[in-house]
Order: sequence, then C-alpha cells, then structure tokens
Amino acid sequence: MILAHPEAPVVVACIQMEPVFSAVKQNVATSIQLIEQAAAQGATLMVLPELCNSGYVFADRAEAWELAEEIPEGTSTQAWLACAQRLGIYLVAGITEREGHDLYNSAVILGPEGFIGRYRKVHLWGDEGLFFTPGNLGFPVFKTAIGTLGCHICYDSWFPESFRLAALQGAEIICIPTNWVPIPGQDPKREAMANILLMAAAHSNSVFVAAANRVGTERGQPFIGQSVVVSYTGWPVSGPASADDPQTLLAELNLADARRHRCWNDFNQVLKDRRSDVYDHMLGSGIQAGHY
Amino acid sequence: MILAHPEAPVVVACIQMEPVFSAVKQNVATSIQLIEQAAAQGATLMVLPELCNSGYVFADRAEAWELAEEIPEGTSTQAWLACAQRLGIYLVAGITEREGHDLYNSAVILGPEGFIGRYRKVHLWGDEGLFFTPGNLGFPVFKTAIGTLGCHICYDSWFPESFRLAALQGAEIICIPTNWVPIPGQDPKREAMANILLMAAAHSNSVFVAAANRVGTERGQPFIGQSVVVSYTGWPVSGPASADDPQTLLAELNLADARRHRCWNDFNQVLKDRRSDVYDHMLGSGIQAGHY
Repeated sequence: MILAHPEAPVVVACIQMEPVFSAVKQNVATSIQLIEQAAAQGATLMVLPELCNSGYVFADRAEAWELAEEIPEGTSTQAWLACAQRLGIYLVAGITEREGHDLYNSAVILGPEGFIGRYRKVHLWGDEGLFFTPGNLGFPVFKTAIGTLGCHICYDSWFPESFRLAALQGAEIICIPTNWVPIPGQDPKREAMANILLMAAAHSNSVFVAAANRVGTERGQPFIGQSVVVSYTGWPVSGPASADDPQTLLAELNLADARRHRCWNDFNQVLKDRRSDVYDHMLGSGIQAGHY
Repeated sequence: MILAHPEAPVVVACIQMEPVFSAVKQNVATSIQLIEQAAAQGATLMVLPELCNSGYVFADRAEAWELAEEIPEGTSTQAWLACAQRLGIYLVAGITEREGHDLYNSAVILGPEGFIGRYRKVHLWGDEGLFFTPGNLGFPVFKTAIGTLGCHICYDSWFPESFRLAALQGAEIICIPTNWVPIPGQDPKREAMANILLMAAAHSNSVFVAAANRVGTERGQPFIGQSVVVSYTGWPVSGPASADDPQTLLAELNLADARRHRCWNDFNQVLKDRRSDVYDHMLGSGIQAGHY
C-alpha cells in the first residue's frame, strides 16, 4: 500500500444497510458489495453498522452464541479482511464475538496490513446484558496509515467519556458502528438526538465522527437510520442519511486541517484546557455516592 | 417562604440582558427590574448572564480589580440578596469577584433564605486568564427548597465533565450564566453550537439546563444571545432567544417528572450506566500523555 500524503484527505464511507437476521454469509456478502462500490468512489475508510453480520434482536443467549464468531478466526472477519487487503482500504465493522464462554458486542478494525484490533461495547443497551459481557478493553485507539482511529458502539455515544477517552489518546476519527433505535423524548420534528450527541462530541473534542446505523425493522424492533459524518467543527459534512433506506454516505476528512485549527484563539485548545486537577480530585472524593 | 409541593414545577427565567461596561449600579438595577417582571409572571428561579454587573471586556487587570467585589459583602450581591428575599425567589447571577489578591469570574447563588453559595469559572476563555484566577471550588451543587441546583459559566459547557460532575452530585437544574461569543466553524444557517452542547448534555445527564446569555457589542466584542432552557430530555422548552435583543425566557420545569422518567427502559438509566471502572482505570494509567 502507498501511504497517503498527510495532507491528503481521508475519504470515509458510512455504509447504512439492512442486515437480515441470522443470514451471516449473506449480510457479509452484501456489505462487501457496498464496500466495493464505495471504494470505487475513492473511499479508503469504511464503517459498517453494529452487529451487521448477524443482526441484532436475539431471542436468547443460545441464538446469539450460535451466530457468534471468534476474532479474527471467524468467517466474517476473514471475509472482510480479504476484502480490505484486496481493495487497500480500512474497515470498521460491527460483529457478534465469542471468546471462551463470553459473547461481546464487538467491532473489528481491519486494514490493508491485516487485522488491526477489536473493540468491545462498553455500555450495553436494553436486554443486551442478557447475552453479552460488557466490554473489557476500554476505549483503544488504532494508529493506521490514514490516521489514528477510535471506535465505539451505539449507546457508548450517550457517555461523553467514550469520546473523551479516545480523543485524549489521539483519536482523529471516531468510527461508530451503531443500531440506533427510537428513544424516549425524541422531538419528531428534529434530527435524531443521536446526531446531536455526535455533533456536541465532535466539537468539544475537535475530532471527526463517522457513524453507520442500520435501517429496517427486525422482530418488531425498528431502527432509525440517519447515519452521519461530523466534522471536527461539530457540523455534519455528510448526512444525516435516510431514516428508512440503505444509503452510503461519503465524506472527505482533512485531518491535517483539523490539527491546524484545533487552537481556537491565542489561548484556547479544548483538549488542553481540560482541568484534570479539578475532575480527578472530585471523582476521587466520593462524588459517586448515588445521588442520581 | 412556603416550600413548593415537590410535584409543582419550578418556573425558571433566563434573563438575557445587555450590561453596560463598568456601570455596575445601573446593571444591577436593570437586572432587578427584569427579575421583578419575571417574578410577576410566576418565575421562582432566575438566571442572569456572566459578569452581568460589570461587563466583560476588561482593558487590563487594574480595570477588572476596580469593578470586582467581595462576596457576599459587595454591593451587587447585597442588592440581589435583598431582591431575592423580598420576592421569595432564587437567583444565579454572574459577577466579578475579588478575594484577597485574586479575581474570579464567579456566580452567586442566592435565595429567600439568604446567601447560598458561589461558583468560580473553572475553564477560562480567551484572555480571561490575564485577569482571573481559574476556579478553585470544583463544581458544587446547591440544595434548595425548589431542587438541587448546579452552576457553571460559559466555556465550562465545552467540557462535558462540567455537567457530569454536577449531575453525579444530584444536580437537577444546571444554571449557566454565560457570555457566548461567535466561535470558529459555526454553521451560520443553524442554531448556535452552544445550544447543541447544552442539548447533548441535558439528554446524556437527564438534567434540566438553563442558560442566560447577554447581547450587544462591548468594546468591539459581539455577543450572540440565544439563551435557552433545555428539558432533561435534551430538547429546548424555551428559546433559543433572540441573537440581538434583551429577552426573558420563561419555562416550567417538572423535576418530579424528570426523576420519574430517568429510566429509559427496564435496563437503562444513563447516569447509573456509567462505567467508572473503565474510565477511572484509563484515566489513571497515563492516558493523558499529550497526544492531542
């Protein structure tokens, strides 16, 4: 692979698709078709939805177990890996992982150089805790030829800590496989609250954010689409995508530009302005005493 | 004072005004007039802008020193205190504070029962650090007859930690005196990024947020108005206000309702779902090594 010039923008593709429950081979084949189309349009970083190989709504743990794979040995990871190496692209894809007796809601990070790493969802939503073990790898970042990637999954975005911990380690693009569902209180006249959360996080961490949601209804559970790519300024540069249909969002992300403009004036750079002295002191002094 | 029934909503007023630089007595008198008008409409909690007694754009430290007051002895605090006691209301007001050799960008929290406490801005913006000492009181919360109040000022909102630390201590309404200015990257076709930040923070902490900005241009520095009251759901319930003119926003906040709906389903309550085991471990293991 020829490394991109650091000034060359990364072209990201958020692939909003509709996995078919339990049709793992078919889902991976569909995703590879969409990846090929995005690569033909110049994309070098692909983001696929959460659990996009298996589907999301498991009836019980046995069903999840049956559809889970070891990483990187499993067939889904191996198929995506071959695709990434053939096309010379980076790929972040949601996958049902099995390791020993544990299941994880995971993402694989793959590239032309091979298997790069995995992420395991830290904050589990709804009945996921009946099947999955909470993520035990923290919020790792992945240094690649196109930039430093962070990754988290869906409900993790409701925790500003997820973005902060990645940004503090140097993440430049936070890739988010997701299965956003309708949530309480959503203003029906406005963009999804998930989009608002990503805008705030991108802005207050000076990082790019690329979220790929799924669409469709699975076993009665609707998903809301509206995948989005957000600039380090906090404003969307592609999307929100359709709420109902498969769609691939493409966006050019200029990482050098982001680093160049991270200082907002002579005094302020938001990540350097953190007062860890204040936060650590407060978090270390019994603040989490259950007032909430 | 007769305590409100816990089911009775708090009526908050965000008083967007235009302080005149250095005209401390006049500014406080104007604010009291606006407080009286809001009280007449039923408001029981008032939020005034940042440094609303003195103005914001100091030429040098000597000028800031001259306009600063001790808390609670100073004339501004005493005038507001008399007003709060006369009207039976709670008040959060931005003020230039002097203590010993230090100046702080502060807020006073006052009520019918008297002086309740103070907050000192933790994250200083622009050249404020030439005049002010960074806040040294953390993010205190204030238990009152109408609910538990959090408070921070302007640029503090760019740090999700400010909201989180207040919410973890039980804050129900976070009151934000502010002097928002135009910022880099603002999409001119959209609401202020400051509004987006508050929406995300209210939603992901299940707290009400009430921000009072100033308007006008002072010594060449424009301010952007757009004060807003955000529900615990993350959606504005009053405002954003005008970008240019003084305006008082009124909103009913049902705190009991917020507590009742804080669980989003059988499994999830966002503040309880935090993974402090993960965050603390990562923050304690050299993550802040300057990658940003």
